[in-house]
Amino acid sequence: MPKFDFRSPRLFVDAPLAAGAGLALDRDQSNYLGNVLRLAAGDAVLLFNGRDGEWQATLAGRKRPDRAEVGAQVRAQDQLPDVHYVFAPLKHARLDYMAQKAVEMGACALVPVTTRFTQASRLNVERLRANVIEAAEQCGILSLAAVHEPLPLERWLAGRDGSRLLVFCDEEAPEASPVAALAAENGANGIDVLIGPEGGFADEERAGLLKQPCFVRLSLGPRILRADTAAVAALALVQAVLGDGNTR
Amino acid sequence: MPKFDFRSPRLFVDAPLAAGAGLALDRDQSNYLGNVLRLAAGDAVLLFNGRDGEWQATLAGRKRPDRAEVGAQVRAQDQLPDVHYVFAPLKHARLDYMAQKAVEMGACALVPVTTRFTQASRLNVERLRANVIEAAEQCGILSLAAVHEPLPLERWLAGRDGSRLLVFCDEEAPEASPVAALAAENGANGIDVLIGPEGGFADEERAGLLKQPCFVRLSLGPRILRADTAAVAALALVQAVLGDGNTR
Repeated sequence: MPKFDFRSPRLFVDAPLAAGAGLALDRDQSNYLGNVLRLAAGDAVLLFNGRDGEWQATLAGRKRPDRAEVGAQVRAQDQLPDVHYVFAPLKHARLDYMAQKAVEMGACALVPVTTRFTQASRLNVERLRANVIEAAEQCGILSLAAVHEPLPLERWLAGRDGSRLLVFCDEEAPEASPVAALAAENGANGIDVLIGPEGGFADEERAGLLKQPCFVRLSLGPRILRADTAAVAALALVQAVLGDGNTR
Repeated sequence: MPKFDFRSPRLFVDAPLAAGAGLALDRDQSNYLGNVLRLAAGDAVLLFNGRDGEWQATLAGRKRPDRAEVGAQVRAQDQLPDVHYVFAPLKHARLDYMAQKAVEMGACALVPVTTRFTQASRLNVERLRANVIEAAEQCGILSLAAVHEPLPLERWLAGRDGSRLLVFCDEEAPEASPVAALAAENGANGIDVLIGPEGGFADEERAGLLKQPCFVRLSLGPRILRADTAAVAALALVQAVLGDGNTR
C-alpha cells in the first residue's frame, strides 16, 4: 500500500476523478514523475482536477509511470473566495512569479489589464495557465484560478460588475491604515484587487478608477513595492480582512 | 542641470554624503552605470549610505562614469520600524528573492536560523548583503537591513530579547484572524517575525517557540504558502497592524 501524505506529489489532471478510475498521464507529467521525481509504478501521488476534490492514486506503467489508478478521495472540493487578481503584466520570469504568488494567495481569477505604463506589451495566456497549474499543484490548492484574456484597463473597467468591491493599490493614495480601510468595506459581492504597473497609473486611468461605484484606494505603507511584492501584500491583507483568512 | 526624479537610478555608497563631496564609484557600480544603464558624465543619480539620507549627484568620468559629485539632499535619513525578519534559509535563487522581499517590506534585520528541516545547509552572508543593497536601491529604501550570521534556532531563541514580540507563522496554528491576533499584541519593544522551513517546525522546536514570553502564533489562512510568499504576507500583516503601515 503506497503511503500518502501532504507532501506527496500533486498532479492536476483534466479527467473526471472517481474511485477505481484509471487515467492516462500526459507525456510531460510522465517525464516529470519518472525523470525529475524518480517515481515508479506503485508510488503514490495525489490528483485533483479543480472539480472533484483531491484523490489518492497509485502510479502504474512499465518504463516510466504513464497511468494512475485512483483510490480514495482525501479532500472534498472547496471553493476559493471570490477574489479576482487584476494586474498589469510584467515581463517574463517576474510575470510567472507574480501569477504563481496570486494563486498561492487564493485568487480565483487572474485578469490581465494593459495600462499606459505597462511594461510588457504581449502576454502568453497559455504560459499564465501553466503557472496557475504549477502553483496549485505545489501549494495544495484544489480549485484552478481562471485566466482571462488581456484587456485594456478602460475596457475592463467599462465591463466589470460595479457591485464588486475594487481594491486598488496606489502609490499616491493618502497614507492610511490599510486594515482599517478594508474593514470599512463590504466584499460580499466579490472583490477585484488591482495592482497597477510599476510606472504607476496615468492620471486619466486613476480618474476612471475613482469613478467606480465601490472602491478602496489602498496604501501599502511608506515604501515603494515592486509589483509582484505588492500582489502578495495586497492579497494577504484582503484575504485576512475580507476573505477566507478572516475566520472570526 | 541634470533632472532628478523618483525613477533616477539609486546607488548605495559607503562614503559619507554631504553637499559638494566628490566620491569615487567602485568598478561594479561604474560598469553598471555605464554598460547596463548607459549613463555618462553629466547624468543624474541618487545616492544613499544608510546614514545620511538621500542625495542628488551628478556623474563624472571619461570613458565610463567613475565618480559622482554630490549636490543637494533630497530626503532626510529615516528609520525602519524595529521588525526583524527571522527565517530558515532556502536554496539559491529563492533565498535571494526572499531576502529582497523582506527588505522591500521594511525589515530592519535579516536573521537566518537553521532548523531541523531547513533545506539549505550553507548560507552565503555576503550574497545576502548584496541582495539587501539591491533591494534597497530599487525600492527607495534609505536604511540598510542588518544581516546577521546564521545560528541554530535553539541558540537564537536562547539569546534573543524576550521583551520583543515573536510572531511565528505556523501551518499547524489554529485558524484564527491574523489581524485580530496581531492587534491584541504590543510590538513596542520590537518584533521578530519568524518564517520556518517549508518542512515545518519539528515538535521540539515548536515547544521552544511556545515557551517565549511574548509570542503570537500566526495562521496565514487556509492555504499552504511557500516560504518566500509567507515572508511577504506575514510582513505585510505585521507592518499594517503593528508597524509603520498603521498610521491611525
